[in-house]
Amino acid sequence: MTYCIAASIDEGLVLVSDSRTNAGIDNVSSYSKMHVFDTPADRKLILLSAGNLATTQAVLEQLHRDKVKEAEVNLNNVECLSAAANYLGQVSVEKQKQHKEAAGQNAFDPSASFILAGQINHETHGAFMIYPQGNSITTSANTPFLQIGEIKYGKPVLDRFLKPETSLNEAARCCLVSMDSTVRSNASVGPPIELLIYRKDSFKLDEYYCFQDDDAYMLGLRRQWEDQLREAFAKLPMLDKKYVKPLIAKL
Amino acid sequence: MTYCIAASIDEGLVLVSDSRTNAGIDNVSSYSKMHVFDTPADRKLILLSAGNLATTQAVLEQLHRDKVKEAEVNLNNVECLSAAANYLGQVSVEKQKQHKEAAGQNAFDPSASFILAGQINHETHGAFMIYPQGNSITTSANTPFLQIGEIKYGKPVLDRFLKPETSLNEAARCCLVSMDSTVRSNASVGPPIELLIYRKDSFKLDEYYCFQDDDAYMLGLRRQWEDQLREAFAKLPMLDKKYVKPLIAKL
Repeated sequence: MTYCIAASIDEGLVLVSDSRTNAGIDNVSSYSKMHVFDTPADRKLILLSAGNLATTQAVLEQLHRDKVKEAEVNLNNVECLSAAANYLGQVSVEKQKQHKEAAGQNAFDPSASFILAGQINHETHGAFMIYPQGNSITTSANTPFLQIGEIKYGKPVLDRFLKPETSLNEAARCCLVSMDSTVRSNASVGPPIELLIYRKDSFKLDEYYCFQDDDAYMLGLRRQWEDQLREAFAKLPMLDKKYVKPLIAKL
Repeated sequence: MTYCIAASIDEGLVLVSDSRTNAGIDNVSSYSKMHVFDTPADRKLILLSAGNLATTQAVLEQLHRDKVKEAEVNLNNVECLSAAANYLGQVSVEKQKQHKEAAGQNAFDPSASFILAGQINHETHGAFMIYPQGNSITTSANTPFLQIGEIKYGKPVLDRFLKPETSLNEAARCCLVSMDSTVRSNASVGPPIELLIYRKDSFKLDEYYCFQDDDAYMLGLRRQWEDQLREAFAKLPMLDKKYVKPLIAKL
């Protein structure tokens, strides 16, 4: 499994990903799911990937090859993020199809999802989630984040706190808490946790973090979040018997 | 969809369920998923249900009929909770099979899950989760709760705070927060929210609550939880650039 988050907010982008992959619970490895492309100075593009590892690697390789051989459409010449998302969707569908059609592979699932985030030229920064079918969606003012992989455990904290006006530092902590809840609840999501903060119009990727399992900052964040949740919890209004209603055995 | 929780802790049981059912997003109804049986004074049994509504209703009806006609095995005469769970599993499998075999119904899913909780005679109180296949599991000291339905959104808060030694009042609030997070994140889980607290060895079901959407206690709980999470959030250790690592474009 995998868990990746992209927050696209007023100040820029926050991208977080785990690094655990597995082909069955007895076959666990560690692979980065945050991929950065070497592009011209007018653009910064970051890709997060989830799903079949062979597919995501094949897609990455193709994106790289297209760039090197200066294909008609490649990440170095697409005009905007949505065009990049379309192109990525096409490559993804093509790679999935190749493997899906292999003889005797009917039960096998080659599907993969991606988040493509960044900024191209004078366009606003942004993020797109590309479905296995190749189509894509972007964020909105109401939902300024995208998730791929094991999305449910970590969604409530994003729903509650992530707004377009949230600061980058706060959004980063929000995404790390979301990731931490997921790591705790699903053994197939795990460290190292990668975090990249992109300040809009900076065209710099110089705020990159990589937290190992025993990282002091992550341990501190986790401990403090737990302690404070515990305090918050203890202060919740007590249930009072004055609210009790009669219960009638129905059967 | 549905979300039900059963906490089986030292002081007794906490049971929480939502009431939304749907047959497609355009066909939403409200049904209680907390079912209490009229049993002899030596036992209290509560059933929570998730999955196909026709199946759960057919199962409930059968349990009721077996009791009325004093069948060889019924909820009034089973010796212990695990025997009751076995019996329920058999009835559930039988009811699912009936409908599964109906002609032309191959794409249709009649499966249902249950949690059976309570206390019988001198045995310790407890809870069992019955899978669609009819087998069942109970709680443990490490995991003193069971969930059915839409379980993921509300699991982190249970993982963090629910322990065997948690008080009933605190466990009830923990389950309500878990339910509230789920209602917020999944539109197919909704009020009224039912809550039942059973104190061990009491053989009384007199702490029953039913919270509508605009219930003052639930609104207060939600607001206070949000406010305090927000405070907790603001206090989390800031990300510091001293942790920054070099990021190398890989592609």
